[in-house]
Amino acid sequence: MSQYWSKIVHSLTPYVPGEQPKANDLIKLNTNENPYPPSPKALFAIEEATNSTLRLYPDPNSDILKQSIANYYNLTTEQVFVGNGSDEVLAHIFQALFKHDKPLLFPDISYSFYPVYCGLYNINYKTIPLNDVFEMSIESYNQDNGGIIFPNPNAPTGIALSLASIKTLLERNKHSVVVIDEAYIDFGGESAVNLIKQFPNLLVVQTMSKSRSLAGLRVGFAMGHADLIQGLTRIKDSFNSYPLDNLAMLGATAAIEDKTYFKNTCQKVMLTRQKLNQDLEQLGFRVLPSSANFVFVTHPEHQAADLAAALREQAIIVRHFTTPRINDFLRISIGTDAECAQLSKSLTTIISNR
Amino acid sequence: MSQYWSKIVHSLTPYVPGEQPKANDLIKLNTNENPYPPSPKALFAIEEATNSTLRLYPDPNSDILKQSIANYYNLTTEQVFVGNGSDEVLAHIFQALFKHDKPLLFPDISYSFYPVYCGLYNINYKTIPLNDVFEMSIESYNQDNGGIIFPNPNAPTGIALSLASIKTLLERNKHSVVVIDEAYIDFGGESAVNLIKQFPNLLVVQTMSKSRSLAGLRVGFAMGHADLIQGLTRIKDSFNSYPLDNLAMLGATAAIEDKTYFKNTCQKVMLTRQKLNQDLEQLGFRVLPSSANFVFVTHPEHQAADLAAALREQAIIVRHFTTPRINDFLRISIGTDAECAQLSKSLTTIISNR
Repeated sequence: MSQYWSKIVHSLTPYVPGEQPKANDLIKLNTNENPYPPSPKALFAIEEATNSTLRLYPDPNSDILKQSIANYYNLTTEQVFVGNGSDEVLAHIFQALFKHDKPLLFPDISYSFYPVYCGLYNINYKTIPLNDVFEMSIESYNQDNGGIIFPNPNAPTGIALSLASIKTLLERNKHSVVVIDEAYIDFGGESAVNLIKQFPNLLVVQTMSKSRSLAGLRVGFAMGHADLIQGLTRIKDSFNSYPLDNLAMLGATAAIEDKTYFKNTCQKVMLTRQKLNQDLEQLGFRVLPSSANFVFVTHPEHQAADLAAALREQAIIVRHFTTPRINDFLRISIGTDAECAQLSKSLTTIISNR
Repeated sequence: MSQYWSKIVHSLTPYVPGEQPKANDLIKLNTNENPYPPSPKALFAIEEATNSTLRLYPDPNSDILKQSIANYYNLTTEQVFVGNGSDEVLAHIFQALFKHDKPLLFPDISYSFYPVYCGLYNINYKTIPLNDVFEMSIESYNQDNGGIIFPNPNAPTGIALSLASIKTLLERNKHSVVVIDEAYIDFGGESAVNLIKQFPNLLVVQTMSKSRSLAGLRVGFAMGHADLIQGLTRIKDSFNSYPLDNLAMLGATAAIEDKTYFKNTCQKVMLTRQKLNQDLEQLGFRVLPSSANFVFVTHPEHQAADLAAALREQAIIVRHFTTPRINDFLRISIGTDAECAQLSKSLTTIISNR
């Protein structure tokens, strides 16, 4: 608290990220990182670029990365925006596309950074409740708005919305931007990226942090009509000319281009999720149907906070949110088979001891 | 231009960074990069960290880097803020500390990103003219304001303000934040960092891009009273939890800790500057007294734009601004001895041929 702060600083409620413990001997299933390492080709590209050229500024437009994303999704580079993690990309989106008189709409249970951005840019918003089984009912979005944003699959529920529903929503909502935050799309959801040519108000956001195992490198991107991308670029060029360092740009490019490694990794995560689902259900958990690299679970006889604390004592970290409606759920990231087996084993012990 | 843009997007005049040419055969003296590579220890630290841990999110607070900066400047980590290049740090400063009813003050000839940030955050500002020899007259800042910012040494003039003048300015201006942007301080200026304990409204900004040869890594930092740092952190945590990737954090830490390499590099740049000054003066240039890793020069008989174009034809890039008062100046970054000798040789030919 300081007399020198701008007014806005006093009113902010900053986002609180999941714990990044400094101890290495924990099974870390709390921030939805990929249990598998980045593509060896990405690591090689970074090593290759770790040389005297780091004295130079990077390409302010990250053209090489935009081109690889454009190639991957069959777009032009004018339809691609890149940033320092998808959180930065989202921040620019809120400022560039969501500040209107009418309220921004997003689900009541969703990525908890959305209301924080609204606070930062003084954006009017309204949350739309998920239904009783935690699904988005797109009918509820059929109202006046200054924009719509939701994760697909949703976080922290893991539940995906079908492409057919997204298309219906887009058809009904042409007067404002619809942003689909596809951080977890590669683990079983259907990307809306092919709808971009049809809907000039659609923006799809993705990240390299989950399916491409590069959370430590900070690269995210948005795809949409060139006019939307231009709006984001105007904000970016008024904020920081060079958001991506050279290593992030080149490592991310190599990761996008290594399609085989990417597909294999996603496949492995999905198989482990299937096994973990079964194990958790056998332990009496209710497991929401997940299309993401995490599961969202609740137990009829055990409080989520207690379970999280008991797991922590056994050196396993999962995420517990104190948000209403979901405060009796745990979000558990999909680890390796061995990590998930250890989790199931620990939960078995915890539950049978109570 | 799009119906979907927030109102602010239409009114922005984004910053235009110096050219980053993709050809390698140019002598690049246009963006004040260091001609020497980063510390070998920084490159080694990056190589060491290029491994499977990149799948994990970095430390959101970059504690290890804050600690190394705090140690270097004899501060606590609560007095240090780090960001994705000093441009991002500056952006957060404008939003966190400069949005007040009274106008922000900065020199009329200065870093051209300052008015861009004012546009982005809708901040009222007033420029204060440099005097006839392009110096800041601190008397002119003795007026009601919502903040003061200036680079020291100033850019693109290269002229430094004495610590005594800065102290006088701080003593007279206790009701708003004074930010000293020390991007070029290590090439001969005197840092104001030791005044932090005395002035709770002083914030000092530095970058790893110039004196530590890491423009490609994107790391900047701010130092000041813990209350000011807390204000910046509240904005950062409402914008992007993890602005520094793991490689940037660790590479920058190693660079800060390699004091010997840093001092030698700065020394070499200053020696080359001295030689270049002499050469340019012999060619009839007026060279402003520079404490930075660039010189700002004008020639009584040759137009700056023409000289820049002629140099470009000889594969040498320098920076020319079309801003009033300085549109007949060139800003020339200090390269290696060989690069500067080539520049002098080319200028000799160009000037004698006219």
